[in-house]
This record gives sequence, C-alpha cells and structure tokens, in this order.
Amino acid sequence: MQFRPELDSSSETPIYRQLGQYFQRLIGNGELHSGDRLPATRELAGQLGLNRTTISAAYEWLESEGLIEGAVGRGSFVRGSATSKGAAVDWSRVLTPSAFPSTGSPASNAIDFSSSRPSEDLFPVDEFRACAAEVLADPRLQSLLQLGSPLGYAPLRSWLLERARAQGVAGPDDDILITNGCQQAVDILRRALTRPGTKVALEDPVYPGLRNLFLEAGGDLTGIPVTADGMDLASLRRALDAGVRTVVVTPSFQNPTGATIPAASRSAFVSMTRAAGAVVIENDIYSDLIYRPDGERPPRLKALDSNVILLGSFSKIAFPGVRVGWVIAPKPVIARAAELKQLTDLHTDQLSQAFLLRFAESGRLAKHEAVAIAAGREKLRAVEQACQKHLAECRWVLPGGGMNMWLDLPAGLDAGALRGLARQAGVDYLPGRYFSVSRPLDHGLRLSFAGLDSARIRRGIEILGSVVDQAMSSRDEASRPMLAFV
Amino acid sequence: MQFRPELDSSSETPIYRQLGQYFQRLIGNGELHSGDRLPATRELAGQLGLNRTTISAAYEWLESEGLIEGAVGRGSFVRGSATSKGAAVDWSRVLTPSAFPSTGSPASNAIDFSSSRPSEDLFPVDEFRACAAEVLADPRLQSLLQLGSPLGYAPLRSWLLERARAQGVAGPDDDILITNGCQQAVDILRRALTRPGTKVALEDPVYPGLRNLFLEAGGDLTGIPVTADGMDLASLRRALDAGVRTVVVTPSFQNPTGATIPAASRSAFVSMTRAAGAVVIENDIYSDLIYRPDGERPPRLKALDSNVILLGSFSKIAFPGVRVGWVIAPKPVIARAAELKQLTDLHTDQLSQAFLLRFAESGRLAKHEAVAIAAGREKLRAVEQACQKHLAECRWVLPGGGMNMWLDLPAGLDAGALRGLARQAGVDYLPGRYFSVSRPLDHGLRLSFAGLDSARIRRGIEILGSVVDQAMSSRDEASRPMLAFV
Repeated sequence: MQFRPELDSSSETPIYRQLGQYFQRLIGNGELHSGDRLPATRELAGQLGLNRTTISAAYEWLESEGLIEGAVGRGSFVRGSATSKGAAVDWSRVLTPSAFPSTGSPASNAIDFSSSRPSEDLFPVDEFRACAAEVLADPRLQSLLQLGSPLGYAPLRSWLLERARAQGVAGPDDDILITNGCQQAVDILRRALTRPGTKVALEDPVYPGLRNLFLEAGGDLTGIPVTADGMDLASLRRALDAGVRTVVVTPSFQNPTGATIPAASRSAFVSMTRAAGAVVIENDIYSDLIYRPDGERPPRLKALDSNVILLGSFSKIAFPGVRVGWVIAPKPVIARAAELKQLTDLHTDQLSQAFLLRFAESGRLAKHEAVAIAAGREKLRAVEQACQKHLAECRWVLPGGGMNMWLDLPAGLDAGALRGLARQAGVDYLPGRYFSVSRPLDHGLRLSFAGLDSARIRRGIEILGSVVDQAMSSRDEASRPMLAFV
Repeated sequence: MQFRPELDSSSETPIYRQLGQYFQRLIGNGELHSGDRLPATRELAGQLGLNRTTISAAYEWLESEGLIEGAVGRGSFVRGSATSKGAAVDWSRVLTPSAFPSTGSPASNAIDFSSSRPSEDLFPVDEFRACAAEVLADPRLQSLLQLGSPLGYAPLRSWLLERARAQGVAGPDDDILITNGCQQAVDILRRALTRPGTKVALEDPVYPGLRNLFLEAGGDLTGIPVTADGMDLASLRRALDAGVRTVVVTPSFQNPTGATIPAASRSAFVSMTRAAGAVVIENDIYSDLIYRPDGERPPRLKALDSNVILLGSFSKIAFPGVRVGWVIAPKPVIARAAELKQLTDLHTDQLSQAFLLRFAESGRLAKHEAVAIAAGREKLRAVEQACQKHLAECRWVLPGGGMNMWLDLPAGLDAGALRGLARQAGVDYLPGRYFSVSRPLDHGLRLSFAGLDSARIRRGIEILGSVVDQAMSSRDEASRPMLAFV
C-alpha cells in the first residue's frame, strides 16, 4: 500500500500529528485493518522525505491512542480500529421493529398510479422563482436564517389564520401551528393525543402514513369502513359507543378512496362526536381540488364544531417538496403541539414558509389553483372514460375531485398478486392491503391519477384492463372442470 | 348586526347557497351565537336587493344543515354552531402532559446568554443569497419542488459522506440520512433505539432538548456527571455495568458545560462502550469551533469505533434557521431511521438542502467557518477577562471552543432564584436545573456566549457580577447574628 498523506507545514498542527491523523483516518475508514503492518520508520521517512524522528513521533502518538502496537524487532501493527475489539452491536436486536410492510419502490419506467402527488409538469416554477427572489432580496432575510419560533413564521401564521377566519374555520379560541407538511402535523398530534391503548378510529381503508403513526404510538385502532359517502356513520356511532375518543377523518376526497362525506351528513357527524366528547382531527388537504363543474363544497367539520382540529397544506396544489403544512385548533391543543414541535425539530424551515407566503399573498396560489383544478377535471374525465372502456368488470365510484380513486377487482382476483403482472406490463399502483386497518382489502387497489397527464392515464388504464382480462381468463381456466372427469 | 355577504352571480354556486354559506361562516367563527335571531326574509331581501324566495331557500338550507331552527310566527334562530351541543372536549384531560418545565422566554432587552446559537450579525447573508440564486436558476429546480427521498437530497448526501470518509468518520458500512437539524436526528434515533424502560445514559448536565426526547420515549435515564474532561469515565463504567446500552454524548464543547473529552480518554471511552455492546450516539455539532490557537482536534469517537452513530450539522457555524442536519451510521441504523423519517415528515425540505450544498461545495462554508472561529476566539477572550474581573467568587472552566460555558455560583446562592434579579438588572441566562438529569444543579448556570458580541459579553458579565455580589451581601447579612442577641 502506498501512503500519500497531505502534510501542511504552514499548519498549526505539527507534522508528526498530521501524519498520525492520516493513519488514524485510514484505520477509521477501514483502509487499514487489524494486524496490518505499518512501514518501518526508516522506510516511510525515505518515501515521504521526512525525518525519521517525525515518523517515530507519529507512531508513538498512534500507540498512545491505542490504534497501533509495536512488537520489538518486528515493527508496528494496526491494533485495529476499536471495531475489532469486544462485541459488535447487534442492530437487529437493538432497533425498534417496523410495524408494517414497505410499499416497495414504484416500478421504473412504469406508468405510475402509486403516488398521491400533483404532477410536476404543472408546477408554476417561474412564479415560484419570482416569489423566492422577492424573499431573498428582502433586508429581513438575515432574521429568517436565524432560529425562529416553534409556532412558525409569524406573517404566514397571520395570513393563514385570517383566511381561515374568513372561511369560518377559525374562531377566537383557535390558534395555528406550522409543521413540515401534514404528515408532521399528524405525528405531532398523535404525540399530543395518544397514549398506549388510546382508542382511535380511522377510516378503513386509510392512508398508511396516518395509520402507521398511530400504530407506533401504541394506539388501539378501529377501522371505520368508508362507503361512497365517506366514513360510515353507523359504524362510527358503534365505535364511539365502544369508547373511541379520537377520530381521524378526511371528509373530502379521502385517500385512498376518493370518497366525500355529503354536506347533509356532516352535521350528524359532528353532533355524534361532539356528544361523545371525542377529539376529531380533520385532514383537509384535498378539499380545494373540486373537479366536477356542479361540485358543491360541503362545509368543513371545523365550521360546524369549533373543537375540531383542522389540518391544511398547499402540497396537493403545488410544490410538495417544500414541506409546509399547518394545524388550526383550540389554543390548548396548539400550545401542547408547539412544545412537541420544538422537541421534534425546533421549527419548520423559515425560508420555505416565507416563499410560500409570497406565493399565496401575491395571488399566485389562487391563479395556480385554478390551473390545477382545470387540469384535474381533464384527468378525471380520462379516468372515467378509460375505466368505462377497459375496466368494465371492475367496480369504482368516480370521485368529485382530489387525487385518488378506489377500484375493486372482479371476484377472485387479488390486487397484491396482480401488481406483479401489472408492473411487468408497465403500470404500477398500490394494492388495497397497504391501506387496511382492520378488514382485508385484497380485492381493491388505489389509482392515484393526479401525477399523470391524461394520455398516460388512458394508456395506463388500458394496460391495467388487459392485465385484469388476462387474470380473469386464467381464473376461469383454473376453475373450469377438467373434461376427463366430467 | 349588518349583513354584508359577498355574492357572486357569475359563480357556479347558486346565490341562495352562497348566502347560506355566508351565515354558516358567521356561525362557525362565532359572530352569530346560539339563540340569535336572523332577520325576517322580507327584511333581508330588502336590505340585500334579493328576491324573498332566495332568502327563504338560504334559510331552508341552513335549517337542513342543522344550523338554524324556525319557530312559526317568530322567525329563524341560530341553533348554535354544534359547539353548543353536547359535551365540550376537556383538553386538560385529553392532552399528554409536558414532562418538564418550560425554560421561559428570554427577558426582552436583556443581554441574553440563554440561547446556544451563532450571532446573526456574522451571517454571510450575501453569500447565502448567491447560493440560493444559483439553485433557483437551475433548470432542475422543478424536481426540487416535487416530493423527494426520505434519505435526503442525493447530491448533499454524497458530498457529506465523501467529506466524512476523508475525515475517517465514515466507512464502507456507513450510510447517511438528512434530518431537520440535529434535534430531529435525536428524535428519530430515540424512536429507532428506545422502548419504554430502555436504559439510556446522558451527560449530567445535558441539553434539555435531548433529555426531554428520551423522557418522552419512556427511557430510563442515567445522568453521567460531566467533569472538566467531559463525561466521567468511571461513572460511565458503572452505568454500563448496571445495564445501560445506549449512551448519548457530545465529546467536544458539550452543551451546557463546554467540556471536551481529551484525546487520550477517547480510546478508553469506545473500548468500554464497545465491550458492553452499547450504542453510542455522538453529537458532533460543536467540534469545528476550536478557538484556542494551540487547540488540537481530538479524534471523533466515530473514527475510533465504526459502530458509533454520528450527528452533524452546519447550524452552529451559520444559518440555524435553515433546518438541515444529518446522521452517519451503520446501514441498518440508517435504513430504520429513514423509515421513521418518512413517517414523521416524508423528507427534509429540498430547497434548503440544495442551498446549503451550494454554500458548502463552493468553498463559502469553509471561508465563513474561519470567520466564525476568529470571532469566537475574541468572544472567548472577552468571557475569560470579564469573568476574572467580575466573577472572581464563582468557579468556571474556560472551554476551548463552542458556544457555552458553565458557571458555579458561590456557596449558598441559587441560580434559579438569582435569575429574577439578573433579568431585572438586564441580563439573562438559563439556570442549572433546566439541564439536570439526576443531580441537583441549582448552584450552576449556563452562559451561552456565541450569540453576543464581545462588548455585550463584557457588559453582561459585569452586570451578572454585580448581581452576584449583591446576592452574596444579602446572604452574609442574613447569616450574621443580630447584635441584640449577642
């Protein structure tokens, strides 16, 4: 092995020490191993053009550090980084286990229906650049780069709270906390609200990132079936009777089903949870994405009951990589959530908050929202037409907006098993079981259509249709009695 | 009350529904209360210049929503938002309790020694602007605004991992995860490593944000006393013998004491933890801030034992408001931590990661680090001189770098009680008890000096000195026997 230390004679660190540190690095990063012999001092001195005493001093230092040992007459040997001494850490025993299967990576080059995200082709990138440039040019930039408040960037908080007041979803007893997207809002709220054994009701099927957080907290989960009209109220009633006191719900364009609770049922919903003294977390990230021309906006639960905890974000309109979401809730909830926010990561990135505030208050958000909705309308039409044409044997309910639709396969087909075939054929999706709380959902799957353009939606559903047809033929083949036995 | 709904006849939403939603908002945000009477349909129609049937349709809709009720001949009354029906949520019972006292806000206008952060006057704001402009101008901006990997922004990960390899603190079995600063790194690691009852050793005193996370996880905490040479090795040995298998340590310029474990003790440290099969989390956020001209850099623990989990960040050099930190650890740890990262907030803001990468790879970070170190050297000198002059009765050990120094008050004085007087006199700090794990530290306090310039450091310590002198006089006064009884 050739040794080529970079030694700097102008440094305050003496050369012998620099040389020692060089060997330390080689040992630390595994290039020198336990038992390796270091060159004799004379030899190395010659190679490096250094005095022999410098080499000896370096070796002495390494020995004092416990990194090498000398054997008289034989030379100096790497004692090994400490890694070779004593017991190694048994990570499989030490690490907490995952409570759930990974969804796997989307198939590369497939038409990918597996991710509930907006299409980046629509991002108004130049508008974003303009917002960012305005923020960066501001002389107050310095204070954005310093530590901020756990509650979030004050001007963004004010803007959002005022908007919420105008929409009737924030009252005088409410406050707001900025989080790194809604995912972190849920993480913080489950820490504020869940102890091991706390009974929590979730939609079934539900977004796995939500279920998994409550599982990690040791919550006792009850899945409330989702119908075409969203969370089933009779099942919710039974869950409340059985002691559930925390309910998490996405009333509009639920992920993964796309279902929406109709206006007429929402008052009944909050009357029920209210009478039980239950906490309701309303995940409101899709409700602005209404695609049907006749689409009405049902009132948010928070407008009907001021105790509701409301989660919002711009991420489903644009820029999900800019991690900003928020919680609007009664002040005691926000006070506790802000403590936990500080504990988890001090505060949300201030630059991102300032960029998004510029984007919103300059009117660019509203303008882009109109673009996103028009595009969503076209995508939804593509979904509808392609499903009618290619998936006639399946059952689905077309959502009125959002990003996701649920599809039930013909009897006897398993969405998990079918995924492998679909990926081979060039299309990917997430099978129902990833979204399951307490009922098997192997017959269903989620189609997340918002990230794709209409042409790819049509093509993807066409492929999926042929995969389904193929699987149905095999199924019929297998179940047909063999002639010889008739 | 005057009603001024904004009605838009070009909207797809019918006017009656717009009017109904207007009242819904007034009820939702508390401007209309339970029992309030709505105007008669004829009266409101006149006021708004609308047809009476439109008003009636709006009222019927509100009634169907359960928001108002009509009494024949008397008019329509607000039923109350659902908030007035049934039980309210009792938040004090529902919310998880704080396990620790708040440190309180720093006194306004005081010379503030209470926060371990860099001085924003030093921030190279224009250099940051240049980096941000470069990132924003890049055509790849679009993909930064889309969802990213839970592991972090790939180019930043590569850059950091390569640097770590060159420093001998990352080997072939290591990987890296980007987090929202080191605070989130600790939050994720304690979720990966701690179950209720897991025995965890922390320095005593320790940064409260670290202690509180392990408390929240139900860890069984052992405080290892910190001496002038950092974590006391004999106490650590006893803790390992007693079953501790997770050790969290800041070997260089520890917060709050400023203490550093000398090079000679570090091999002994890792031999000990290694032999016990214990997990070591090395918090390495201060070690680059070496102020003493003769200061040597002891090897990081990670260079001596590849099993160590290393935490890093740029936040103590500059821009703590840009929330980016990282974990370098054996691959199984990073795999589990990435799952938890995805669960907690999907991923760290990508723009911030890209900005900081430009700052680092363009050489601006190294340039600014030199500035920060030169400034720190001057600040430390101010601390030393002012303490010698004004706090001769106190005990302290001047740190070799970092941001914090510990100060022990003269016997009989309580740092918590003294804080009130100090704040009145115009100086603030955090008393020892905030940093306590398992021993009382009422006699001590933390002086965080890095956020202040030398003049304010001198003035602040002078004020603190006079507060201490005053408190000592009162103490002596109180303990002096009254003459009448002699």
